[in-house]
Amino acid sequence: MEILLTNDDGIHALGLCALYESFKADGHRVMVVAPDGERSAVGHALTISDPIKVRKVFKEGQIFGWAVNGTPADCVKLAINSLLDVKPDIVISGINRGANVGINCLYSGTVSAATEAAILGIKAIAISIASFSDLNYCYAAFVVKDIVNWFYNSNTSCKAINVNVPALPAHKIKGIKITRQSTSPFNEKFEKRIDPRGNVYFWQCTSKVKELQVDTDIYWLKKKFITITPIKFDLTDHSCLNDLVLPNIN
Amino acid sequence: MEILLTNDDGIHALGLCALYESFKADGHRVMVVAPDGERSAVGHALTISDPIKVRKVFKEGQIFGWAVNGTPADCVKLAINSLLDVKPDIVISGINRGANVGINCLYSGTVSAATEAAILGIKAIAISIASFSDLNYCYAAFVVKDIVNWFYNSNTSCKAINVNVPALPAHKIKGIKITRQSTSPFNEKFEKRIDPRGNVYFWQCTSKVKELQVDTDIYWLKKKFITITPIKFDLTDHSCLNDLVLPNIN
Repeated sequence: MEILLTNDDGIHALGLCALYESFKADGHRVMVVAPDGERSAVGHALTISDPIKVRKVFKEGQIFGWAVNGTPADCVKLAINSLLDVKPDIVISGINRGANVGINCLYSGTVSAATEAAILGIKAIAISIASFSDLNYCYAAFVVKDIVNWFYNSNTSCKAINVNVPALPAHKIKGIKITRQSTSPFNEKFEKRIDPRGNVYFWQCTSKVKELQVDTDIYWLKKKFITITPIKFDLTDHSCLNDLVLPNIN
Repeated sequence: MEILLTNDDGIHALGLCALYESFKADGHRVMVVAPDGERSAVGHALTISDPIKVRKVFKEGQIFGWAVNGTPADCVKLAINSLLDVKPDIVISGINRGANVGINCLYSGTVSAATEAAILGIKAIAISIASFSDLNYCYAAFVVKDIVNWFYNSNTSCKAINVNVPALPAHKIKGIKITRQSTSPFNEKFEKRIDPRGNVYFWQCTSKVKELQVDTDIYWLKKKFITITPIKFDLTDHSCLNDLVLPNIN
């Protein structure tokens, strides 16, 4: 297979390297187009008002990929439209450091990269590991190989999936669940501080989800399952299309 | 009503001022928390790795609002969680310079601000005008008043709507359509250039939609209708939940 890798942690992130080594070892052609540094929480942002710079990155004398001073969605668009000589069979975004579940999927550069590939008609997988420390990328990189094979060959209309792996040794993982995104907001607060010149500034802090919704990505991840959520790029709330009755405005 | 205004064109944008004047004149309490400059195409990005600075903006000796060096989604979160003394009845994002229809809704800071309000449980409206020049903000600001009243009082489960107004004189607008988001990709290209030091860079360019899907926001806007699309923040592709059959992975 021809595989495009990207992420939002940057081209030098360990999670991306784990995917690279793993797919390369299996004989796939692996191409990397990723941000030149961390772009966490950039959502589906694009760079349209500034030029996008790119540079080749080498590892052990061989070209490893392209570093882009843009967002994950930029990387996917630029790769498909300009940088690559072939259209990849699949795009994999990750392995992200930290889970991307619930509402956080909207803020996630990792998930948005997969969504962008889906918009461009290519099957895509976002993969994240549910911890910021002690990361077992090897296991996640191993699991994603099976998920890639399954998803690539599956006869589904779904173009993109969001995969989250518990940060646990393999034998402690209970299984895999195909499940929906939690829609509960998180408990958020802004920590207010004063800078040495007397100006106010804030740090954005997020903690736990307000409501643990049953049978969602957050729910099953907590229960030590790998979660797979099919995602889409139609934001229409179809359930409300008939619910909203046209106002009489002239 | 207590109304929070924001946008992605920045606190000094004419479209935001038009909303401010219009709702203020009707006796509403209007609060403004908006980016300190343009943040187009930032999607649902959040500022989590840097502090968010805020400063009060005055007009004619009176406080006009808060300028935030963050994204539209930051503005909404910060306003609701910290800056405002009341929870607004409604959040209005716009009036954006340029339409936000089809796939562009995913990249739009304007739409994401409305989505963010919906996540926080507040009804929200994103409003855009379909031109980058000759902008008749007065008419759009007039129309949105009726839409706000209707939507605020309507008994719908929908929390956020995306409104697009043709850039036409009132008598040329054919009516209002409640419709879905187009899912067709756009024709995109990256213009490759070489800087004076010999480095490659790209400009991202977008042109027309690849396929004009019937009965969508893009379709009706072209036909000179105001479009209203109910939007949601659950990215799950529910139609595929049963479509994907669990792989046998251990």
